[in-house]
Amino acid sequence: MKFGGTSVGDEKCIGRVVSILEHYYKSGNEIAVVVSAMSGVTDQLHAIAEEVEKSSDEPPVDSFVQSIRTKHKKVLDAVAKDESEEVMKEIDKRLENLKNILTAVHNLRELTPRSRDYIISFGERLSAQIVSAALRQAGINSIPMNGCEAGILTNARHGCAHVLPESEPRIKSRVVPQMQDGIPVVMGYMGCTEQGIVTTLGRSGSDYSAAIIGAGIDADEIWIWTDVDGIMTSNPRIIEDARVIADISYLEAMELSYFGAEVLHPRSIEPAMQKGIPVRVKNTFNPSAGGSCVRATEHKDSRVVKGITYIEKVSLINITGAQMVGRPGVAKAIFTALAESDVNVMMISQGSSEANISVIVVDEHLERSIDALSNVKHGGYVREVTYDRDVVAVAVVGVGMAGTPGISGRIFTALGKAGVNLMMISQGSSEVNISFVVKEEEGPKALRVLHDEFELSEEEN
Amino acid sequence: MKFGGTSVGDEKCIGRVVSILEHYYKSGNEIAVVVSAMSGVTDQLHAIAEEVEKSSDEPPVDSFVQSIRTKHKKVLDAVAKDESEEVMKEIDKRLENLKNILTAVHNLRELTPRSRDYIISFGERLSAQIVSAALRQAGINSIPMNGCEAGILTNARHGCAHVLPESEPRIKSRVVPQMQDGIPVVMGYMGCTEQGIVTTLGRSGSDYSAAIIGAGIDADEIWIWTDVDGIMTSNPRIIEDARVIADISYLEAMELSYFGAEVLHPRSIEPAMQKGIPVRVKNTFNPSAGGSCVRATEHKDSRVVKGITYIEKVSLINITGAQMVGRPGVAKAIFTALAESDVNVMMISQGSSEANISVIVVDEHLERSIDALSNVKHGGYVREVTYDRDVVAVAVVGVGMAGTPGISGRIFTALGKAGVNLMMISQGSSEVNISFVVKEEEGPKALRVLHDEFELSEEEN
Amino acid sequence: MKFGGTSVGDEKCIGRVVSILEHYYKSGNEIAVVVSAMSGVTDQLHAIAEEVEKSSDEPPVDSFVQSIRTKHKKVLDAVAKDESEEVMKEIDKRLENLKNILTAVHNLRELTPRSRDYIISFGERLSAQIVSAALRQAGINSIPMNGCEAGILTNARHGCAHVLPESEPRIKSRVVPQMQDGIPVVMGYMGCTEQGIVTTLGRSGSDYSAAIIGAGIDADEIWIWTDVDGIMTSNPRIIEDARVIADISYLEAMELSYFGAEVLHPRSIEPAMQKGIPVRVKNTFNPSAGGSCVRATEHKDSRVVKGITYIEKVSLINITGAQMVGRPGVAKAIFTALAESDVNVMMISQGSSEANISVIVVDEHLERSIDALSNVKHGGYVREVTYDRDVVAVAVVGVGMAGTPGISGRIFTALGKAGVNLMMISQGSSEVNISFVVKEEEGPKALRVLHDEFELSEEEN
Amino acid sequence: MKFGGTSVGDEKCIGRVVSILEHYYKSGNEIAVVVSAMSGVTDQLHAIAEEVEKSSDEPPVDSFVQSIRTKHKKVLDAVAKDESEEVMKEIDKRLENLKNILTAVHNLRELTPRSRDYIISFGERLSAQIVSAALRQAGINSIPMNGCEAGILTNARHGCAHVLPESEPRIKSRVVPQMQDGIPVVMGYMGCTEQGIVTTLGRSGSDYSAAIIGAGIDADEIWIWTDVDGIMTSNPRIIEDARVIADISYLEAMELSYFGAEVLHPRSIEPAMQKGIPVRVKNTFNPSAGGSCVRATEHKDSRVVKGITYIEKVSLINITGAQMVGRPGVAKAIFTALAESDVNVMMISQGSSEANISVIVVDEHLERSIDALSNVKHGGYVREVTYDRDVVAVAVVGVGMAGTPGISGRIFTALGKAGVNLMMISQGSSEVNISFVVKEEEGPKALRVLHDEFELSEEEN
Repeated sequence: MKFGGTSVGDEKCIGRVVSILEHYYKSGNEIAVVVSAMSGVTDQLHAIAEEVEKSSDEPPVDSFVQSIRTKHKKVLDAVAKDESEEVMKEIDKRLENLKNILTAVHNLRELTPRSRDYIISFGERLSAQIVSAALRQAGINSIPMNGCEAGILTNARHGCAHVLPESEPRIKSRVVPQMQDGIPVVMGYMGCTEQGIVTTLGRSGSDYSAAIIGAGIDADEIWIWTDVDGIMTSNPRIIEDARVIADISYLEAMELSYFGAEVLHPRSIEPAMQKGIPVRVKNTFNPSAGGSCVRATEHKDSRVVKGITYIEKVSLINITGAQMVGRPGVAKAIFTALAESDVNVMMISQGSSEANISVIVVDEHLERSIDALSNVKHGGYVREVTYDRDVVAVAVVGVGMAGTPGISGRIFTALGKAGVNLMMISQGSSEVNISFVVKEEEGPKALRVLHDEFELSEEEN
Repeated sequence: MKFGGTSVGDEKCIGRVVSILEHYYKSGNEIAVVVSAMSGVTDQLHAIAEEVEKSSDEPPVDSFVQSIRTKHKKVLDAVAKDESEEVMKEIDKRLENLKNILTAVHNLRELTPRSRDYIISFGERLSAQIVSAALRQAGINSIPMNGCEAGILTNARHGCAHVLPESEPRIKSRVVPQMQDGIPVVMGYMGCTEQGIVTTLGRSGSDYSAAIIGAGIDADEIWIWTDVDGIMTSNPRIIEDARVIADISYLEAMELSYFGAEVLHPRSIEPAMQKGIPVRVKNTFNPSAGGSCVRATEHKDSRVVKGITYIEKVSLINITGAQMVGRPGVAKAIFTALAESDVNVMMISQGSSEANISVIVVDEHLERSIDALSNVKHGGYVREVTYDRDVVAVAVVGVGMAGTPGISGRIFTALGKAGVNLMMISQGSSEVNISFVVKEEEGPKALRVLHDEFELSEEEN
Repeated sequence: MKFGGTSVGDEKCIGRVVSILEHYYKSGNEIAVVVSAMSGVTDQLHAIAEEVEKSSDEPPVDSFVQSIRTKHKKVLDAVAKDESEEVMKEIDKRLENLKNILTAVHNLRELTPRSRDYIISFGERLSAQIVSAALRQAGINSIPMNGCEAGILTNARHGCAHVLPESEPRIKSRVVPQMQDGIPVVMGYMGCTEQGIVTTLGRSGSDYSAAIIGAGIDADEIWIWTDVDGIMTSNPRIIEDARVIADISYLEAMELSYFGAEVLHPRSIEPAMQKGIPVRVKNTFNPSAGGSCVRATEHKDSRVVKGITYIEKVSLINITGAQMVGRPGVAKAIFTALAESDVNVMMISQGSSEANISVIVVDEHLERSIDALSNVKHGGYVREVTYDRDVVAVAVVGVGMAGTPGISGRIFTALGKAGVNLMMISQGSSEVNISFVVKEEEGPKALRVLHDEFELSEEEN
Repeated sequence: MKFGGTSVGDEKCIGRVVSILEHYYKSGNEIAVVVSAMSGVTDQLHAIAEEVEKSSDEPPVDSFVQSIRTKHKKVLDAVAKDESEEVMKEIDKRLENLKNILTAVHNLRELTPRSRDYIISFGERLSAQIVSAALRQAGINSIPMNGCEAGILTNARHGCAHVLPESEPRIKSRVVPQMQDGIPVVMGYMGCTEQGIVTTLGRSGSDYSAAIIGAGIDADEIWIWTDVDGIMTSNPRIIEDARVIADISYLEAMELSYFGAEVLHPRSIEPAMQKGIPVRVKNTFNPSAGGSCVRATEHKDSRVVKGITYIEKVSLINITGAQMVGRPGVAKAIFTALAESDVNVMMISQGSSEANISVIVVDEHLERSIDALSNVKHGGYVREVTYDRDVVAVAVVGVGMAGTPGISGRIFTALGKAGVNLMMISQGSSEVNISFVVKEEEGPKALRVLHDEFELSEEEN
C-alpha cells in the first residue's frame, strides 16, 4: 500500500491512513506501506536547496528547518502523542543532518546531484517516522525503513535513478520479515547505490517505490492511495459526467496515464505488470469508493474504448522537404536535434510519403524545438519548419480496439459529423490507442462527441 | 522535354522521340531535350565497374566495350544513317575513354566514387549523341551537351550530388542560345563540380536533370516522356479500373510519388514547383494520350481524394517500453540507430502515450533495423521490439482533404465496414495524406474499398 | 613578507615572527604578511577529508576538530593572551564550518574538488587569526584577510588554481589601505573564483601567494621567511662546505629551485621577476643571517657557476628505434603517452640522429612510464625501451656560463679526470644550465669535483 | 647487391654494373640484385603524375611516355642488343599501362595514393628489365622480378609503406630459387599489399628493399653500390682531408646517417642489423676502392670517435616558462603542436630545471613550428618562444665513447680552447653520440677542431 503526499498531509489525513491500515491489517492481511513526503515538503526542499546554493547572503537555513520541524511536530503530537517525544528525537537527528548539508551547500555554493538527492529525500525520512509512530500508537507494530534499508538498489543517475534487478531478493529478505508481526513503513521516492549513496527515483517516484516493493515482496495486490477516486474515462473538468473506470488493463492504464493529473505513472505499472500483480487505485478521502483496479486479464467487458485522454498546452510542429525522401539520416537529424535541446516528443507522425514529419511537443519546449530544427534546416535536408501553438492532442484508448475493425471509422465519422478538422492522426501498432490533434477551440467538442459515441458515461456492465 | 531510358531503347523508340520532337518543334516551340541512357546501359556500366575492380583475372573490358558499341551503332545506323560514320567517331572517342578508365580501375583495383560516377555517366554520353544525330537527320539543328556544358553545377557528393543554386544562370546562358535555331540534347543524370569533375545525381537523376534544366531556362512547361500514360489513381495491377489523373497539384504528385513505378520522383518536382512551371507526364508510346499535368493551382475539381498509393514489401516494427515516457533521448536513440544502419524509415507513428513508437521500413532493411534496435533495447530504455513482415502501407492523397472534416471518417468507416483491421495510422499536419498499414492479405480489399468510396474510377469533371 | 609553516609552528616561532615584524615595521616599513598554515595542519586536513569521504563508520570529526582547536588555542593563549577569548570565538566559528563540511562530506560520501579546497584552506584561516592577534598584542594594528578578501582571483581549477591578471588592481586596492596603519595578515595558499568559491593554489602555494601579493602591492621587496639560511651552492648533505649564495639572479634561482628542499618554487619567482621586485629568502630561526637575495641584475660577480643541484631518486629511460627517423609524430607519441600517465618529465635529450630519445623521470613515475611507453612500442615506431633506476641528475647553474666558451670543457674535463662516466648530457639554449646524468654511486664524486672546480666553497667577492 | 639510380644511369654505368656482377658471380657467389629506377626517372614520374591531375588542357602524356621509351631503348640497345626487340615488347606493355593510368588520372583529375604509387613504381619496372637483359647478354641467366613477385609484403600506407614480417619466408621461397643458376633482378622501392596492390617504400626505398631482400634470403653480405666511396669521417666539403671509414658498427652508421648525402638511411640498416648481416657500401664508379663495411662487432679499433656529422640549415627554438615546472602535459602540448604541424624535431634538450625546452628543426619547418608553438603559448603554460636561424648542429659519433670517461671533456675543452660557444648540448643514454649546436659561423671551426682532436684524418690501424 502506498500513500501519496496529500494522504499524509495533516493529522486528519494520517488518522484516515491509520484507520484504513488498521482495518485491512486486522482483517488478517500482511501489509507493507510506502509513504510520500507530506504534501509540499519535497517542493520546499527543492526550493531551499536551490536557494542556499545561489544566495550570497546567509540563507534562512535555521528558520526553514524550524518550520519543517513545527509542521511535522504538530502532526506527530496529534497522531502519536505517547511516543511523540521519543520520535521527535529521531526527527531532530535527521533535521540536524539536513541543516548540516544545507549549510555545507551554502558554504561551497555547490549543489551536486548527490547532495540534491540527499536533501530532497528528507521529506520521506520525516513522514515515515510519523506514520510509523501513528501505527504504533494504534497498537500495530511498525518500524520506519528508508529506501536503502528496504533493499531498493539503484544506479547512480541521481535525480532519476533506475532500480536494479538485484533489488528484488533484497527487498524480499528485508521487508517480508518486518511484515510478520507489524506494518513496516518504507520511505518512498528514495533508494541507494551499491555504495550506499542516497538516490531519488524521479517523477512519481513514490508510486514507483510502491510498485517495486510490491513486486519485491510478491504482494497479492498493490494499493495506491491517492486523492482521487480512480482512473477516469476522461478529464472531468471538460466532461462533467466522466466516470471512474472500475476495471482496466495494464496497457490501458499506461496509455491513459497522461490524463487526470497523472494518477498513475506508467513506470509504476511496469513492475506490477511483469509479475501480474493487480494495482488498485483508491481515494484516501473516500475509502469506501471502489476505485480502479489495474490488472492483466481485462475484465469481461463489452467496451472497446475505455477512456479518452486530453492533452492541452501542446504545439504541433511540421517539418517538410522533398529532399527528405529516401535519406536515412533525416529522422536521425531531427530527433537528435530535439533530444539535444532536451525536448520531449509526445507524438510523431510521418506518412508514407516521407516528405513530411509532424511532431507534438509541450508548449514550453516549442521555442527551443524550433531553434533546434532551424539548424537541421540549414543542414539542407529540410525545406520548411512550421508550427501551431493552439492545438490539443486527444487519445482514444482501449484494448478492445485491437482487432475490432470499424472503431476508427466510428471515431472519425463522429468527429466528421461534428465538423471537427483533424490536423494529425497517429495510431501505432499496439492498436490500443488512436491519437489525433485538433485546434484548441475544437478540443472540448471532439472530446464530448467521442465520450458520447462510446457511451463512456454509462455504467459498465 | 525529357525522355527516359525506355523511350530511347531502340531505333523505333528513337524514331518516335524524333517525330514527337519534330511535331512540337515545327509547331513553333523552343525545345531543349534531356535524355537518359538507353535502357539497361547504366546498370551494365555499374556491373562492369564492380567487376573490373574485383576480378583478379583480366576482366572482359574489350568485349564489354564492343557490345556497347554494337548496340549503339545499330540504333545510330537506323536513325541517322547520313552522319552515322562521323558520329561513330565521336562515340568511339568516348568508348576509348571508357576502356581507359575501366583498365585503370582494374590495374589499381580501386574504384573511387569519382571514377564510378565517370564510368556510369557514359550511358547518357552515348545516347545523347544518337538522339542529337537523329534530330539532325530529321532536318533539325541539334548538338549534344553534357551536364557540365549545360551548366549543371553540383557539390562533390559523388553518386548522389546536390545541384547548386549557381547552376540556374549558367544553364540559362548556355542552353537557351542553343535553342534559338535547334534542339540541344542534354545528357541527363550527370553534372559536374566547380572543378569540372563529373558527378551523377542519384536515383531518378534524369528526371531531376530535366526539372533543373526546365527551371534554369524558365521553360513554359516541363514534359517528362516515359512509358506510362501518366500518374494514376492507384496501382492498376490491383485496381484494374484505375485511371490516369489528368490534373494534379505539385503536393499531390509528391505524395503519390511512391506509387506506380515511381513515375516522378519528388526531387524532380521541387525545382518546377519553386518556379511554378507545370510538369507534364506523357507516354512516348502513346503520345496522343493526355497524360498528367502537375501544377500549382489545382484544377477546379470536386475531388478531395486524388489517388491512393499502395506500398508492398514493407515491414512494421513496434518499439515498446514504459521507460520511454518522458525521456527526450529515446526517439533520438531509435532513429540514430536506424540511420547508422542505413535504414530508411517510411512511416512513423507515436501516439500521445509515448510508450510506443511504430515504424515502417522496406523489407530488405528489416533485419538490420532489428539488429540496430536490439542495441537500443540493451541500452535500457526500451522493453520490447517486435515486427511484422506481412503488411502493406496505403496512403490516401488529396489536397482537398485539408480542411474538409469527415474525410477520415469516410475512409475509416469504409474500411471498418469491409472488416479491415488497421495496424497503424498516420496523418501529418500537411493533411494531404492519410496513411495506414494493414495486413498484406487485406491490402487489396482496403485499396478497392477506398477507390470505390471516392469514385476514383469515374471520369473527372 | 611571507612566513612558512614551520615559521608559525608553535608559540616560540610566532614570537620570533612577531619580533621580526615589529623590528621592520617600527623601522618605518609598510608591511603585508602572508602566512602558511601551522606546520602539519594542511596535511592533517587532507587526511581527514579523505577519511570522512571513505569511512563507512562515523569518522572522528569531533575529536579531529577538537585537536586542531587545542593546538591553535595553546599557541593563541601564549602569543595573544589579551584577546585570546575574543579571537577564539572567531576560530570557533571557523571550526564550526569545518565540522559542518566534514560531516556533510561524510554523509554524502562525496568529496568534490571544491569541498576539498574549502577544507584544506582552513589551516591558513586559523594561523592568520593567531598571527594577527599576536601582532595586535604587540601593539601593531592588524587584521587577518583571506585570499579572497586580499583580492586573489583565480580560475576554477581547484587544487591547482591559476591566478588571473585581474587580481593585481584588486590586491592593490584592498591590501594597501590596510598597510597604512598596520600589518594585514593574508592567508596564503588560497584564492577564490569570480563567484567567490574558495580555491587553493597547489604546491608551494603560500610562496606563490606572497609573490602575487608582493607584485600586486608593488612591494619594494618580497621576503620569504623559511627554515633555512637561503639558497645554497649545493646540497649540504653531500657537500658539507656548501655555502649560502648571497646574490643570485631570477633565472639562476629558478634553475636551482630543485635543490635543497625546494626553498623557492619557480612559480613564486615569476610574478616578482615580471615586476623586477627582489625576493629575499631569510631564516626565521636565524634572522640575522644575510640570506639570499634573488634579483634581476646579477650582482657584479666573478663567478660563472653559481650552484649545482643534485637530484636523487630519478630514473633514466631510453627509447630507441631506427623507424623513428624522420617521423614527426614520434616525440608526440612518446610525450603524449607519458603525459596521459601523468608522468612529469624532468630531462629530455635527443641527439641529432633522432633515433634515440632519453628522458629522466622521478623513480615513482618509472613504472607507469614504462607501461605507457610499451604501448608506443607496440604502435611500431619504437624498437626498444630500456631504463636505469640507479642514477642521479646533476645541473650546473650560472648565468655567466652563457657566452663564456670553455665552461663545458672545464666541467667535462674535471669529470673525465675523476673517471666519472656520463650517461646523458643536456644543455638547452638558455645556456644557464648544463645538466647531466651519472650512476648513483658516482654522483657525490661528480658533485664534489665540480663544487671544487668552480670554487663554490670560497667566499664570493 | 643493390645498385642506385646513378649506377644504372646510362649504358656505360650498366656496363659497369654488369661487369661487377659478372666478376662476383663467376667467382662462385650467389647473387640477387636490387635496382633503382634510372636516375631522374622517379622524379619525372612524380612530376607527370601531378601534372596530369592538375592540368585542365590535354597533358603531354604521349610525348612523356615517348621520351621515357627513348631513354630506356637507347640504353637497352647498347647493353643487350640481341634481345633488344623482345625486351622492348615487355617494356612497351608496361608503357601502355603507364599511359593508361596517366590518361585515367587526367580524365578524373584524381590522383589517389594508390594510383600515385602505381605510377612512380614504373621507373624500377623499366630499369630492372634492362639490367636483367644486360646480364643475359653477358651470358648470365636472369629474370626481372617486381617487389610483389619477390615477396615484399607491406601494409597499405601508400607512399611510405611498412614491410610486414610475413615477407621474410616469402622472399626466401621466391628469390632463392632464382639464384640457383642466375641473378634475379628485383625492382627496388616497391612492394605490394596482401591484396596485390602496389605500394612504394618511401625515401631511400631501394636501399630498404635491398636490406629486406638481403635479410629475407639470409645473405652473407648486403652490398649497396652507390656513387661515393663509402661513409666518411666528416663532411668533405668542410674537412678536405675527411676519410672513408673502412669499418663501422651498425649503431655508428645509423648515427652518422645524416651526413654525406645520406649514404645509408638508418631504415636500411635495421633489417641487416637484426640478422647480423654486414652491409658493404661501395662505389660503382670506383669498384676497387674498399668502401665501408657496416657490421655488428666493431673491428678492433683504438678509435673512440668514428665520425662527426654536420647539419646545416637548421634552427634552434627555445621554449621557456616557469609555469612549465611540474606540469606533466607541457612536453605533450609542445610535441603534439609540432607533430600536428608536421614538424620533424631533430634534437631536443631539456635540462633538469624543466623550465626550458630547446629543440632543433630544419629551417623550412621553422615558421610553422613557431606558429604551432604560439598556440601552446596562448594555452598559458609557456611564457616565451624564441628562435635562432643561424645555427648548425654537430654530432660526435663513436661506440667507443660509451664507458670511456673523459671524451666529453676532450670535446668541450677543445671547443672551449677554440673559443666556440655552445648553444645547446645533448647526449642521450646510448652514449654513442654527443650532439651540440653552435652559431653557424663557428660551425666549421668546431668541426675542424674536433676532427683534429680525434685524429680522424689519420689512417686507421
